[in-house]
Amino acid sequence: MITTTCLHSDTKKFDNDFPVTELSDFCENEQNVVWADVSDPTSEDFLELAEEFNFHPLSIEDCRNAHQRPKVEEYPGYYFIVLYEAELTGERDDLELRELNIFLGKNFLVTVHSRPIRAVETARRLWGEWTDRAEHGSGLLAYLMIDAIVDDYLPLLDIISERMDDLEDQIFGDFQQESIQDIFRYKKQLLYLRRSITPLRDVFNTMLRREQPIFARETHVYFQDVFDHVIRVADTIDNLRDMLGSTMDAYLSVSGNRMNVVMKRLTSISTILMSATLIAGIYGMNFDLMPELKWRFGYVFALLWMLVTALGLYFYLRKIKWL
Amino acid sequence: MITTTCLHSDTKKFDNDFPVTELSDFCENEQNVVWADVSDPTSEDFLELAEEFNFHPLSIEDCRNAHQRPKVEEYPGYYFIVLYEAELTGERDDLELRELNIFLGKNFLVTVHSRPIRAVETARRLWGEWTDRAEHGSGLLAYLMIDAIVDDYLPLLDIISERMDDLEDQIFGDFQQESIQDIFRYKKQLLYLRRSITPLRDVFNTMLRREQPIFARETHVYFQDVFDHVIRVADTIDNLRDMLGSTMDAYLSVSGNRMNVVMKRLTSISTILMSATLIAGIYGMNFDLMPELKWRFGYVFALLWMLVTALGLYFYLRKIKWL
Amino acid sequence: MITTTCLHSDTKKFDNDFPVTELSDFCENEQNVVWADVSDPTSEDFLELAEEFNFHPLSIEDCRNAHQRPKVEEYPGYYFIVLYEAELTGERDDLELRELNIFLGKNFLVTVHSRPIRAVETARRLWGEWTDRAEHGSGLLAYLMIDAIVDDYLPLLDIISERMDDLEDQIFGDFQQESIQDIFRYKKQLLYLRRSITPLRDVFNTMLRREQPIFARETHVYFQDVFDHVIRVADTIDNLRDMLGSTMDAYLSVSGNRMNVVMKRLTSISTILMSATLIAGIYGMNFDLMPELKWRFGYVFALLWMLVTALGLYFYLRKIKWL
Amino acid sequence: MITTTCLHSDTKKFDNDFPVTELSDFCENEQNVVWADVSDPTSEDFLELAEEFNFHPLSIEDCRNAHQRPKVEEYPGYYFIVLYEAELTGERDDLELRELNIFLGKNFLVTVHSRPIRAVETARRLWGEWTDRAEHGSGLLAYLMIDAIVDDYLPLLDIISERMDDLEDQIFGDFQQESIQDIFRYKKQLLYLRRSITPLRDVFNTMLRREQPIFARETHVYFQDVFDHVIRVADTIDNLRDMLGSTMDAYLSVSGNRMNVVMKRLTSISTILMSATLIAGIYGMNFDLMPELKWRFGYVFALLWMLVTALGLYFYLRKIKWL
Amino acid sequence: MITTTCLHSDTKKFDNDFPVTELSDFCENEQNVVWADVSDPTSEDFLELAEEFNFHPLSIEDCRNAHQRPKVEEYPGYYFIVLYEAELTGERDDLELRELNIFLGKNFLVTVHSRPIRAVETARRLWGEWTDRAEHGSGLLAYLMIDAIVDDYLPLLDIISERMDDLEDQIFGDFQQESIQDIFRYKKQLLYLRRSITPLRDVFNTMLRREQPIFARETHVYFQDVFDHVIRVADTIDNLRDMLGSTMDAYLSVSGNRMNVVMKRLTSISTILMSATLIAGIYGMNFDLMPELKWRFGYVFALLWMLVTALGLYFYLRKIKWL
Repeated sequence: MITTTCLHSDTKKFDNDFPVTELSDFCENEQNVVWADVSDPTSEDFLELAEEFNFHPLSIEDCRNAHQRPKVEEYPGYYFIVLYEAELTGERDDLELRELNIFLGKNFLVTVHSRPIRAVETARRLWGEWTDRAEHGSGLLAYLMIDAIVDDYLPLLDIISERMDDLEDQIFGDFQQESIQDIFRYKKQLLYLRRSITPLRDVFNTMLRREQPIFARETHVYFQDVFDHVIRVADTIDNLRDMLGSTMDAYLSVSGNRMNVVMKRLTSISTILMSATLIAGIYGMNFDLMPELKWRFGYVFALLWMLVTALGLYFYLRKIKWL
Repeated sequence: MITTTCLHSDTKKFDNDFPVTELSDFCENEQNVVWADVSDPTSEDFLELAEEFNFHPLSIEDCRNAHQRPKVEEYPGYYFIVLYEAELTGERDDLELRELNIFLGKNFLVTVHSRPIRAVETARRLWGEWTDRAEHGSGLLAYLMIDAIVDDYLPLLDIISERMDDLEDQIFGDFQQESIQDIFRYKKQLLYLRRSITPLRDVFNTMLRREQPIFARETHVYFQDVFDHVIRVADTIDNLRDMLGSTMDAYLSVSGNRMNVVMKRLTSISTILMSATLIAGIYGMNFDLMPELKWRFGYVFALLWMLVTALGLYFYLRKIKWL
Repeated sequence: MITTTCLHSDTKKFDNDFPVTELSDFCENEQNVVWADVSDPTSEDFLELAEEFNFHPLSIEDCRNAHQRPKVEEYPGYYFIVLYEAELTGERDDLELRELNIFLGKNFLVTVHSRPIRAVETARRLWGEWTDRAEHGSGLLAYLMIDAIVDDYLPLLDIISERMDDLEDQIFGDFQQESIQDIFRYKKQLLYLRRSITPLRDVFNTMLRREQPIFARETHVYFQDVFDHVIRVADTIDNLRDMLGSTMDAYLSVSGNRMNVVMKRLTSISTILMSATLIAGIYGMNFDLMPELKWRFGYVFALLWMLVTALGLYFYLRKIKWL
Repeated sequence: MITTTCLHSDTKKFDNDFPVTELSDFCENEQNVVWADVSDPTSEDFLELAEEFNFHPLSIEDCRNAHQRPKVEEYPGYYFIVLYEAELTGERDDLELRELNIFLGKNFLVTVHSRPIRAVETARRLWGEWTDRAEHGSGLLAYLMIDAIVDDYLPLLDIISERMDDLEDQIFGDFQQESIQDIFRYKKQLLYLRRSITPLRDVFNTMLRREQPIFARETHVYFQDVFDHVIRVADTIDNLRDMLGSTMDAYLSVSGNRMNVVMKRLTSISTILMSATLIAGIYGMNFDLMPELKWRFGYVFALLWMLVTALGLYFYLRKIKWL
Repeated sequence: MITTTCLHSDTKKFDNDFPVTELSDFCENEQNVVWADVSDPTSEDFLELAEEFNFHPLSIEDCRNAHQRPKVEEYPGYYFIVLYEAELTGERDDLELRELNIFLGKNFLVTVHSRPIRAVETARRLWGEWTDRAEHGSGLLAYLMIDAIVDDYLPLLDIISERMDDLEDQIFGDFQQESIQDIFRYKKQLLYLRRSITPLRDVFNTMLRREQPIFARETHVYFQDVFDHVIRVADTIDNLRDMLGSTMDAYLSVSGNRMNVVMKRLTSISTILMSATLIAGIYGMNFDLMPELKWRFGYVFALLWMLVTALGLYFYLRKIKWL
């Protein structure tokens, strides 16, 4: 379904019911700005778009095949941009990545997505409010959209960061196998998030360093801002990954430490019980001549001996911190 | 065996029975396009090719020696490209890499391979269909072939990715030594795949950034597309390698955790059994004067004592989660 | 609250009571230098600043939102700089990072911060003293401030370095779980510190390599000096991180070594006690015909046998260093 | 000892008995090519060379001191190249690296080495055969030599690779401490090999990208070929190092797994034997009133009870895979 | 204390008693060369230098504060260089780093150091000998000094390398906790050495690639030589660090292997002793009817049974290599 929003340069009015087939004519006035939002696109939609805006078959094909990597490609007359909006959904905080394809020309913007994208709604609302900066045209619109997507990564990373703080407390407290599974899950999520954001870093970097024939110098500063946010997101992801690695290392150390404690305890308990058992074994021998057996308090004596040995070992092992 | 396919520029017809020895004359018309596919090449084939297309001895020699690294080398008048087609074969998903050598000139393409290459067939079929873009000549043909090879990596990586998900489930479930062997095997396969694809990334990058004297600007966009796919494949491989590393780490943690559990259990069981044995040992002593031995229910008392001790320890160890 | 400090170019006098609304006029004389320090800024403060110095809305917005990453952004007519002052506070040496935003123009400097910044005071004091270099203007002032912030990282890193030396001693001595927690905490602090300083490295690098239209060549040498200090801080942080990693590795090795020692001891003690128990068990058997049982010194003989076995094992195990 | 081989440009004849002191005159004809091979050089040899070819004192000094790093240095009028020929020798496959110093001028080549170098012989033989390409002069000769050296790394790496496959089989089969020692030894060898080859990668890269005043464009393609082989060798080394790392990781995992198995077995055996011992201990108690002791089949009953307990535990432990 | 050494360009004579205050005049003749060596500098020394050679306050300040990072900074008219001379001192091979500051101008060289530097003496001696190359001026002198410092790193690294070979032998032989401490100490020393040398690598690299206005082309070749040595030292350090990492890994593997061996032995010994004890326990039961107890050779039979069981287990465990 194609939804068009056109900004008439002369009247500064938005027009939502513009017929798709007249877009190319409307675009010929370089002051007009066109935004065509295609949700859940059909083959006809693609055909119409390709015809109206003269898109290269390769970019249309990329747009059709989902699961492209995030990128900005330059085609004659327009940029083709692939982005991913991220959200944590469900009870177990599953990560959902929603693809958004953008065709960004001098005075037109075409967005294609199969699932609803929050950033599209945000951009629509803000564009209406920022009419005073309308001269920035499709570049500003693209900025609003990309910025909304990139900024949405941060609260999401904050959630993961909080969860990691909990994990950290668990490590030095009561650690379960589920905690390892959680570490593993966050690692995977961060990997996916990084994959969705880091290619943009390089791309915006080249885009900003190159002379940009399509956009005016004033729009440049907005892309610089998005670039800065992309870097911040990418840095945060790298830091979280780093922290996760440290958490894993700390776990291994703590785990080794605990094993040591358990081993020492095992040795201690074995030593105490085996010593007492040995004494019992000695007085269980059947020699004819064992004076102690005849003693009046022989039994008590044996029990006391066991007790003394056990306590002696206990306090010794306590002292060397094995118990 | 040399199979030629010639595209006559004037008639737009394909000619499959073109004699090899007249190829150089035919190529002189820059609008004509020649594709010579050499499967299982003999020494004579190499001689003929070298003569007909004036190939440098070094590129012929590289072509002869198998196991070159993937590369694109520039020689006067043509590029020499080495690629590997990948396939998982057999029951155990063994990785098979098949070498394809391409000599890519302005209006000719020579492919050399000792084993049948699927991408060659794909390119042959698509070239026939895309006659409307015939003006892109040998560049387009090369694109079709390289693109087919690169795109074939992705389903293969999907299979490995699925296997890795299984492994992950095993880690937190029932892990066998075979699983470690599998991790090791996938690691090796990813290493081979990476070796086959990453050199291309750098090569296409330089090729795209340089001014390219051989191909027209319009063909450029196709190579950009292949480059993008190469990057996507390389990124996916890196991600899978990263995941495999995480899986290994997770395994080590889980393994440490399990060892801890086993150790605690060993300690617990030893403590319970040794305690009961100690009591039995005590009443096995042969002292003349052991009042309990005369008791009517002395035996039952001893058994109860054992039971109480064992249960007490059991519940205590349960509580501290050692059992 | 906005505090202004103006340097009249003609009289070389400082003027602290300059009205904010006349700053733009005062700045028109390029020899005058203005410093406006905004602590705990209100919305009106931002409005006034934006109006007076003509700041871009994006930089004002960045300034409003705390937790920006450290950066230097170029806007028409001024640089926008974000820095973090670091301090270890409290008993547990918690790391506190205080944000400082700087708008640096040709002859004006605006500093914005919500918490008091020591470097601002240092710069204020030094600026008063260095009047002889007043011709360096706002660039020198910025240098004084940034240098004060960067230099403050070093004593802080020295403290962490000392703590790490203690940890190292603990590793080879008496290591507690708290020590692992400390390693983990320092790792996190170093991560935060690195995040606050390394982006500056890249930024100053580009700034120094580019031709700088805003500052004179003579001021350049000061920024070179700050850059050098930033690198030194970043290097020190990297070295400490490296050392921390080594400490962790050393801990794992030592821990493995200790486990080995404990295991050997367990085996040794078990062997000795079980051997003696076995002998006791043998003479506890009820066979009718066991000659030793009738011996006069049978009991002593048995005890001696136990002792000899135990001592034999003890010395053997000592020799092979298991005990 | 200096051995000269001169190629007369006019007659295309080789002259092996050329007096060293006339070399500089002979070289003045730029079409002539001179190769002076200095094996086991004396101080006089160095003096003579320096005088005849006007070599810079620093390059002579580098040549004198063995153990330089592989490098290509540009001096006025010639390149100074240091290379290492590698060979596995002896029973234990010890790695031997033999240094070769090359002074490469427009029409002269001086090779200096203290031990016999196979590549020098190979180059001598091939140069005689390739007289038709004599116009490439000293550049071609250098190519033949460097290519022979670089290509010799590959069979050597194949041997190490095979040994590593054996090690891999051992890991999942019967692993000895010697295997770890082998891993360690291969790691070291690969480190040395990498040190001998990777500096060349960077050096050839710069050499090929720079405009080269000394050699003709046609010779360029030969150096491109050597560069490609150097990269292939370096890549193979990196891959082997990577594999060795994986092998080490796999070993750690397998080792952890085995420890787990041993621990479970220890726990299982202890449980079974201790349970039986406990039963024996119970019937070894000396209570007056123990009904079972009077039973006719009491003894058999006790033995059966032991057996049932042992078997029950055995099958249970089997089921949970601890035995 | 300032020691001056002046080379008169006309007489080629050295003059050691040149008054400091006339140095600036003497330098005005660009053919003259001045070397001022300042050991244990006082505040007056700094003032005098700054005045005489017109040094920038920032470089003087850097010179005053010890513990700068190694660097080369360009100031108008001179380079400011910071280097560290390394030495292993004392019984425990403690690493000592001595700072040397160099101000290098077109025809003057000022060296500042608070502790005696061997390289300064070496340079003084060699400068006297190399008068024939006097035209290289202060550049040559700087080369002699820096080269002496850099070359001194190599024998030091050889010592560490030898110590590491010893450690390696220990790992596969008799490893003590002290060995881990040694590994840790070498790791730290290599870290400090790397910190002292690697910044020079980047700095010389930029210096050599840039057009250098201060030094003549002929001096360039000397700096290329130093650069080459710096790289060699840096490479060696990296290799040693790499080896140390491998040593650590090897230790972990060997340690895991040994633990396994100990565990198996524990299990084996426990199994044998517990089995024998069980048999003894069985014949210690007090059943009225235990036929074996009445047998004539019952006792011997029981002992034999124990022996057979123990030997059977012993040989079985031997076979499966647990003992």
